Amino acid sequence: MDRALALAARALTLSNPNPRVGCVIATAGGEVLGEGFTQQAGGAHAEVMALRDAATRGHDVRGATAYVTLEPCAHQGRTGPCCDALAAAGVAHVIASIADPNPLVAGQGFARLRAAGVRVDVGAGADATRELNIGFFSRMQRGLPWMRLKAATSLDGATALANGTSQWITGEAARADTHAWRARACAVVTGIGTVLADDPLLNVRGVDTPRQPHLVIVDSQLRTPPTARLWGVPGRQIWIAHASQADSPAAQALQARGAQLVALPGADGQVDLAALLRWLAQQLQVNELHVEAGQRLNGAFIAHRLVDELLLYLAPTLLGSGAMGLASWGPLTRLDQGLALHWHSVERVGADLRVLARTR
Amino acid sequence: MDRALALAARALTLSNPNPRVGCVIATAGGEVLGEGFTQQAGGAHAEVMALRDAATRGHDVRGATAYVTLEPCAHQGRTGPCCDALAAAGVAHVIASIADPNPLVAGQGFARLRAAGVRVDVGAGADATRELNIGFFSRMQRGLPWMRLKAATSLDGATALANGTSQWITGEAARADTHAWRARACAVVTGIGTVLADDPLLNVRGVDTPRQPHLVIVDSQLRTPPTARLWGVPGRQIWIAHASQADSPAAQALQARGAQLVALPGADGQVDLAALLRWLAQQLQVNELHVEAGQRLNGAFIAHRLVDELLLYLAPTLLGSGAMGLASWGPLTRLDQGLALHWHSVERVGADLRVLARTR
Repeated sequence: MDRALALAARALTLSNPNPRVGCVIATAGGEVLGEGFTQQAGGAHAEVMALRDAATRGHDVRGATAYVTLEPCAHQGRTGPCCDALAAAGVAHVIASIADPNPLVAGQGFARLRAAGVRVDVGAGADATRELNIGFFSRMQRGLPWMRLKAATSLDGATALANGTSQWITGEAARADTHAWRARACAVVTGIGTVLADDPLLNVRGVDTPRQPHLVIVDSQLRTPPTARLWGVPGRQIWIAHASQADSPAAQALQARGAQLVALPGADGQVDLAALLRWLAQQLQVNELHVEAGQRLNGAFIAHRLVDELLLYLAPTLLGSGAMGLASWGPLTRLDQGLALHWHSVERVGADLRVLARTR
Repeated sequence: MDRALALAARALTLSNPNPRVGCVIATAGGEVLGEGFTQQAGGAHAEVMALRDAATRGHDVRGATAYVTLEPCAHQGRTGPCCDALAAAGVAHVIASIADPNPLVAGQGFARLRAAGVRVDVGAGADATRELNIGFFSRMQRGLPWMRLKAATSLDGATALANGTSQWITGEAARADTHAWRARACAVVTGIGTVLADDPLLNVRGVDTPRQPHLVIVDSQLRTPPTARLWGVPGRQIWIAHASQADSPAAQALQARGAQLVALPGADGQVDLAALLRWLAQQLQVNELHVEAGQRLNGAFIAHRLVDELLLYLAPTLLGSGAMGLASWGPLTRLDQGLALHWHSVERVGADLRVLARTR
């Protein structure tokens, strides 16, 4: 199963919005006959890749055991049901990490395998599969993406000096690492404040990836400049979430530039952020959502308790008074009103510290 | 040598202001004959403790090897020279970690041992000895204590909410850990702002220690209340560094309360903090200095580049805008004006993270 999990990890930037799944088909004696992992959406799932691999190698899988990190699918999507393919190939035993997190289909793959006379055991590697597919599980079980808020601060919490200087508080290794986190996300979210202030690209650079995540701009009044640098990135969708008129000249100009617009007005005239997350899960099938924004949008996400995970790069420096913090919200009057987190991991990345802290 | 270093660590809260030193006397075959570590000031050094231990156990140390974590002393202080004691006992070989950091005496112990026909090798365990005695080395080599600034903040840098609420941002384990760090220091420094705002004790509690560190209050205008709780702690010296008149009624009242006063006026009418550190090293023989103060004094220490190490407890929470930071200084206009640190260690302490970051 460790080998199947390692294969699953190779689908990290590839299989979105499908889950990252690995499969190894082996004899009872442990000889590997075939292996594979889920390809890009519309391509083959891990089980089919492993069956094909075995066939390419000239191996007979009848009577073999398939180790697969998620319940084989039972539905006819763009590919045929994997449970049927395994049974038809004569696999005798399926060892799966965990059931499909979609409550509407969970167990159906196992049931069809068992009905076809295949022995099924479930549980090995469940935690690792859930962790690797934290966004897919979130979307299937909550109807929400896994929302990861990225920030880079000094050790005393500054993202920028009072005069706006912020390039670069963290080092090159941390910035490169950020691109790897963008690459695994289905979508990157930013706010109009960051677009206007920094004119960022917000694409994946310097990381080998088969696809660019969508870019989603929270821009209530449709102020994104048609001249911004972000339009120059090929091969990605740009969505603008707004709370404005969909037929305004500004809207038409942005659509002419290639943007897709979605109106999600909240009660306060701003974009309804909770509705945006639901919409991203349901309409764009976003598993992991990567937020890189400024004080204001960060503060709104935090104040609305929409953050699942903080991806924080801490630079080994103190920047003193008057500097800008990572999020504008509050002020609080009691400590228990803070955003409670727990550490998931703390690692050095170059000269900086990368902290992953979660709210759930 | 590992055993000698472990013994040295047992002098952590005991031997101040003398260095933390361990000694093991063993046969060439590795049989331990005697061991010891430096006792409280005026008591026996590690080498003498090890010789006594061997005698108590009835072992003959003639021809044996002594592993000692610092160069044996050659001077007649409150105890006799350790190099003479080792040579007189017939020890044939001394393996020492490092020379005495005091440039005026370094090498004299080794020279006297060699003159007495003892073989001497130096180097094993040097880094560990320097680290364990970081304050002693600092005082001997720079004439300054090792200045460790302690703070506890949220992950976004808040030490208190805008309304002053700060108890407790970090958890019980972090607070207990703080007492262990106080215990190893020769002196704890705070500012008058903290005394007036929090009325703290700033002693060592809940940690087994043979002594309380001195308390030093930076109180330029002698405003420390004679009714403060800190006077109630027995067994420690209280020093008040000020920039006021030494014969004022306030000064007399504080002296009557048991304080010792030192006038260290700076050009700005405040206490000269650089002079204070020199004075603490030279007059009070302070090796490690533990600073627990508020925004203002912390900011002055940082702005004057007097911090050697930051001992920072990070709580897994975000506290938002308007909160107070750990130090009031700046605002900066360029990132390279920040206080540059490097990570020394990052550990979980209960639910919090303990970060040790150094400027040198």
